Amino acid sequence: MTVDPHPWAADLHRLHAQVWARLVRGVGDRHAPARHPTLATVSPEGWPEARTVVLRAADPLAGSVDIHTDLRSAKVVSLRANPRATLHVWDASAHLQTRVEVTVSVLSGPEVAAIWAKVPDPSRQSYGTTPAPGQRIAAALDYAKEPEAASFAVLRCTVQALDVVHLGPQHRRARFERATHWAGQWLAP
Amino acid sequence: MTVDPHPWAADLHRLHAQVWARLVRGVGDRHAPARHPTLATVSPEGWPEARTVVLRAADPLAGSVDIHTDLRSAKVVSLRANPRATLHVWDASAHLQTRVEVTVSVLSGPEVAAIWAKVPDPSRQSYGTTPAPGQRIAAALDYAKEPEAASFAVLRCTVQALDVVHLGPQHRRARFERATHWAGQWLAP
Repeated sequence: MTVDPHPWAADLHRLHAQVWARLVRGVGDRHAPARHPTLATVSPEGWPEARTVVLRAADPLAGSVDIHTDLRSAKVVSLRANPRATLHVWDASAHLQTRVEVTVSVLSGPEVAAIWAKVPDPSRQSYGTTPAPGQRIAAALDYAKEPEAASFAVLRCTVQALDVVHLGPQHRRARFERATHWAGQWLAP
Repeated sequence: MTVDPHPWAADLHRLHAQVWARLVRGVGDRHAPARHPTLATVSPEGWPEARTVVLRAADPLAGSVDIHTDLRSAKVVSLRANPRATLHVWDASAHLQTRVEVTVSVLSGPEVAAIWAKVPDPSRQSYGTTPAPGQRIAAALDYAKEPEAASFAVLRCTVQALDVVHLGPQHRRARFERATHWAGQWLAP
């Protein structure tokens, strides 16, 4: 008999709890896989986009997660046109793929002042590049980083659904939706 | 003086070559970061989607990459409605994010018979699940894997653009487009 190293994957409630525990771990542990999800959005022209982001908050009770970004980044333009996004985490050691379907509010200015106040100085370098992120420049280093509270944005992501695949000795896939109070449903993997 | 461990990041031509070398490595080396890109697509309802895939071929000269999938998977439905996709690779040791913007042809049946013939038996288990991937099932293991050539599809991805970010001691970002013969353009990171 092989001992299953991930018994939580066989039960919908335990699987759901495990997914949230790993998201929460990503906020506090810079080496956890959920620290750096891939955020997928749709551009105003209909292109799918994806980039690595840093998970800054995860609230299992509210079912929400936060990401910080430059207010002038392409992802903000995309989210203002289509506020739906998916966060993707591949946790190799747990053989676990988590996909988090979210609707996103872009918060900035006074409503994020308290969060900005807690952003450490080195991290603030990420908000306020001149020219704005994605603008053409003649040489690679023709830009300046000047921390700027006005360029700081919080993407408050309300989780609408979780799609989870566990690639253990047996493959399992489940979906959890806010609309059904996260009851969970097994899907063919 | 600190020695830059990634001198290729400072030159557009070398950066472009490095990105392709790492994609090619992903095909042959199961431990290379580019082995498992995240594939972002748009659902027919306009939701951004993302999932881990396996890179099966990379052709720098043609500017194309291949992914294998089940013909009945959600990603095929999405790609038939909107054939644009983005592949995302985060290469931690190289501090390199590569985003590959592609247009996708879904190949199946006789046109992929020669590729199917080379897929090893264990891998064939991934094509032909009953019920089809994503269908609801009452219990986690209420499905069967029966390799089925008719369920095998190749996503032939024609690269239209590469967006590359190198997070070295200095951050650099560049974009390479097919339309300008991959000449390359620095962007503000």
